[in-house]
Formats: sequence, C-alpha cells, structure tokens
Amino acid sequence: MKDEAGTLANELLDESIVIDGLIVSNFGRSVFEDMRRGGLTAANCTCCVWENFTATMNNVVRWKGWLRDNADLLRQVRTTGDILQAKQEGRTGIILGWQNLTGIEDQIGYLEIFKQLGVGIMQIAYNTQNLVGTGCYEKHDGGLSDFGHDVIAEMNRLGILCDLSHVGPQTSTDVILASKQPVAYSHCLPAGLKAHPRNKTDEQLRFIADRGGFVGVTMFPPFLKRGVEADVDDYIEAIDYVINICGEDIVGIGTDFTQGYGQEFFDWITHDKGYGRRLTNFGDVINPEGMRTIGEWPNLTAAMQRRGWSESRITKVVGDNWLRLLRTVWGA
Amino acid sequence: MKDEAGTLANELLDESIVIDGLIVSNFGRSVFEDMRRGGLTAANCTCCVWENFTATMNNVVRWKGWLRDNADLLRQVRTTGDILQAKQEGRTGIILGWQNLTGIEDQIGYLEIFKQLGVGIMQIAYNTQNLVGTGCYEKHDGGLSDFGHDVIAEMNRLGILCDLSHVGPQTSTDVILASKQPVAYSHCLPAGLKAHPRNKTDEQLRFIADRGGFVGVTMFPPFLKRGVEADVDDYIEAIDYVINICGEDIVGIGTDFTQGYGQEFFDWITHDKGYGRRLTNFGDVINPEGMRTIGEWPNLTAAMQRRGWSESRITKVVGDNWLRLLRTVWGA
Repeated sequence: MKDEAGTLANELLDESIVIDGLIVSNFGRSVFEDMRRGGLTAANCTCCVWENFTATMNNVVRWKGWLRDNADLLRQVRTTGDILQAKQEGRTGIILGWQNLTGIEDQIGYLEIFKQLGVGIMQIAYNTQNLVGTGCYEKHDGGLSDFGHDVIAEMNRLGILCDLSHVGPQTSTDVILASKQPVAYSHCLPAGLKAHPRNKTDEQLRFIADRGGFVGVTMFPPFLKRGVEADVDDYIEAIDYVINICGEDIVGIGTDFTQGYGQEFFDWITHDKGYGRRLTNFGDVINPEGMRTIGEWPNLTAAMQRRGWSESRITKVVGDNWLRLLRTVWGA
Repeated sequence: MKDEAGTLANELLDESIVIDGLIVSNFGRSVFEDMRRGGLTAANCTCCVWENFTATMNNVVRWKGWLRDNADLLRQVRTTGDILQAKQEGRTGIILGWQNLTGIEDQIGYLEIFKQLGVGIMQIAYNTQNLVGTGCYEKHDGGLSDFGHDVIAEMNRLGILCDLSHVGPQTSTDVILASKQPVAYSHCLPAGLKAHPRNKTDEQLRFIADRGGFVGVTMFPPFLKRGVEADVDDYIEAIDYVINICGEDIVGIGTDFTQGYGQEFFDWITHDKGYGRRLTNFGDVINPEGMRTIGEWPNLTAAMQRRGWSESRITKVVGDNWLRLLRTVWGA
C-alpha cells in the first residue's frame, strides 16, 4: 500500500513493538528479510510440530546456525528485554516456540534444557493426543493427564508460555485452570464466524479471558469465514470479533504464516504424527489478499486504521499486549 | 512339597503344557534354571515397561544374548509350535512381551519390527497415559485415542496379543470392543476379593469373557486379599473366583514373578515413566508362601489338586487355555 494511509501505517509500525505470535515458515534468509520488510520486532517461530527429542534438538541447532549467519537481521529472544533491544537495533527477535510437546518425549527435565536454549512458548498438544493432553482433531478429549499436570507445573516454574491453539476443549479448560500463569491461544479464530474444530467458541474465548489469559488471532485461510477469498479486512473483522469478547488488552496477532511451504509440508502437518491417518484437508492455502507475505504486515496496520481503530488499540494489538504477556510469564 | 500330593503334582506338571502369562524378573541364568525347576513350558517375559524405542531394542538385544548363551535351557517362541517344541526338548519357551507401548514411541511401523523379533504380547498402557490409551493409576481415563485405534488394528493385523492388565477401565473397554481378536488381562486379580486400582471388578471380568477374551490370574501380593500373609491356597481361591465368573476355558496363570529384584526396581515401576510422581507404594513384596520362587510352580498344581480340581481343569488353567489363545491371536 503506497497511498497516504499506507505511509501512515508504516510510520505507526516503525514506532511500535510488532510481535507475530506464530510463524511456521520455510525459514531461511528470504523469510528473515521479509520479516524486516514487514517491520516485525519479534516472532514466535515454530521449531517442533511432530518431532521427537533428537529431531527437535536438530531443529534448534539449525536455528543457532540461522541466528549466527543472519545476525544482521535477527537476534535471539530469551527475555522481553531482548525484544526491546531488537527494536532498537532494527533486527527481528526470534522467540523459539513449539506447537507440540513431543520434543520432550517422556522427560520433564528436557523442558529446562529447551528453555535455556531459547524456547519460551510451547503448545500443549498438536491436533492429536500426546502424553500431556489431547489435540483438537481427536474424537474424544480426556483432558490433561496426570503427567500433564506435572508438565504444566514445570512450565510455570521455568517461565514457558502454555499455548492452547491446537489443543482440545477439555485439555484447554484443564490447562487454563491448572496453570499458575496466564496461558494463550497464540493463533486461533472465533467459531462465531466459522464453525471449525480449530476455532474457539465465544464461551471458550470468554473462559480464557476471564482467567487472565491471552488470545492471538490467526488469519489461516481454512479457518476464516471467507476462506481463500478473504482479504486483510476479513482478518480485521475476526480480530474485532475477538476484541469484542475479550477486550483490547489481551488480544494480539498470531498470523500462522506458512511462507515458502508447499503441499508436502501441509500433508505432513495434517496427518497424525506426520505420517498417520489424515486429520483434515486444507485445500489451497492462500493467505488473505493484502497479507499474502510477511513483508505485507504494514497493510494490516493500515487496515486497522481504515477500520477506525485508535492508535492506542493498534499498538496494543500489534505488539504491546504480547510484550506484557511474555514479561509476565517469562519474568523478565 | 515332597509328600505324595507333591509327587503327583509333579507328574501332572510333567505331562502338561505349563505357561506363565507374565514374568518380569531379574533375568539371567539363575532365573532360567528356576524356570526349568518349576517345569515352565513357556513364559511371557517382559522386555519393555517404561523404555523408549532404543532402550527397548537394547533389551531385545540382551534377550538375544541370553537365548544364545542359555540355549540348553531356553528356546525363543514365535508360534505355539515353538511352545510344543520347547515342551518336547525340555526347554522353556521365551515369549517376549511388553507391559507398555512406549517401545514404539510414535511409530506404528515399529510394531512389525518387534513382532518379527519375537514380541508376541503387548500391554496397551502401563499404569499411566501413553499415546495409545490410559493406565489404571490415572485419575481420569479418556479411553483409547484415535492413534490407539490405529495401533490396535495394526496389532490385530500382525498377530500381537493385546494385554490390558495395567490399563484403565475406559481404555480397556474400548480395546475389547475395537480389537478383532481376543484380548487378555494377562495378570490381574478380582476386585471382588480386594478393592484396588489394579484389580478387576466382576463386571469387567464378565465383559472381557463375554467378548471372547482371556483372564490370567496373578498372585502379586499387594493385590491379594491377605497381602504378604497369603499362601498358595489364597492364590487358588483367587483363581477359583475368576473361574466362577469367566468359566474354566479362558482362565490361565500370570504370576508376575519379580524374582531377583529389590527396592530399586519397585521404585522404578511405581513412579510415572520410571522417575516421575509416585503412583503407588507396594511395601514389602513377599510372594505367597509355597510360591515364593518360580521353581515352586509344582506347589501350585498340588494346591489345585488339594482344592479338588479335576485333572482337566488343571491342565487347562496351567497352560492349555493360554496355548489356545496364543494360537488364535498369532495364527500359528
């Protein structure tokens, strides 16, 4: 967007802390460059979906290489101080995050290992059942296991944010009640706009909000009302819907950009454990017009302005709310 | 027992197929010698409790060494033909078995690998929740997971017996209904004699029996009515109790001998995943008088005779029933 609103949006973006609560892209230099183009101060970057301990550790090793080789663009984030530092330096802060707890296998002690390596956000389950809880595509959700209760307590102790986006309804409720720290749906959409196993009902949104939690809103097209026909304004509509339920102080962005990935990746994430039975079929994944790439993030701020959002609401939603949540959970 | 009854029992034992449906002992030459002393034709020997893929494979490797080094005493069992062969040769047939499905981690394909290596019996869960189902010490049992349904189908295809002894009630029900082959409680006791999370209610015993299943009766003292005060006659009482519910054609023996193990082993098995929260505390584990060691198996047959069991019932319960079940499930 090169018009006046676009320029304004860019200026606002320049001054703001901008945090994307979920990116799972084909990481590498071109994605990192696009993060700079998009003005991202920090992003939660997935490094575990179905992987076991060794494969996840190998992903972390790859990240260490990327952080070294792209130090002109990136800084690793362990505290919110690192996020502020990244803003000052004009770099993008990389928060390592998991979408599943398979990375610890059956070892609670591995949580501390990964936390020290920079993994600050972990989703409790990805789509199906693991040792801790159950994902949102299972026929039945038996809730948080006893081991799961031990895991949540240890994540609380270490300061790792519990993410519930792909988690089943009963396990989500159990985690919200069990956690001594705020927990998040880092990237979800409201079922009120489209019924879908991945979308959250008004009741679920209210439940997490009433208990000090957080909701990041995604724009992943299969879960949007207008699907692949959606544009950035549809995304704003969904964010507004969530804000109307949760208030503007605990809502943020979690795009779920899958930039650079093709069918092979979508086949992998939509089969149980990466190879088992098919859980869902996304069809074409085409991001909302105006937000096709990470570099188009300024269009999101512009759309917020078009919608008449106050500057204060915009800065909260694009980053300040995420920053406050992470400071609370991480303790720094 | 050196009296007349004892001699008679030994003769009967000599002629019978004798199968112990569960032994988890500190395996080695002295245990193998005791198996011969006890007259065992075959035994289901545990080689996975909490272990992951690699550790379980290492246990199988150890077994291959034991089978090689003790070939005068042992024969590996892959079919019931191997059991008959072991009887003829005066050796004890070793059925490798698992008490948990942690050995496959998240890979269904590993089931076939282990089956080909001689693992013919696998318990669906051990005390707590795994990827497939939930154990009997969990606060809540959400039942068989969707992945679990896929695992049961593959175990059916491969001919691996599903064992439910340590499995939670809902998961047990789900497996009994999902399996196309008979399934077993390989080593359990009736809750009707002592209420305990590990013991099965009359209703549960009837449920598995009515659906073509099998019940092996254990004598593990913490689950016996008289605990460490029990003797071999208490064990017979428990077997009789189960026979009265299930009939004498689908009941067998699964002693759960933990011979040669001390406190370290019991601490390992009674903590989640071997190291986590404590699940139960057995206190002293002293086997029933008359059945303190595997070598005393002839006393069990003698006690059955003292109780007035027919020769036919004795031969069924000490081995023929197990043999028929295994032939059905293994297909040979």
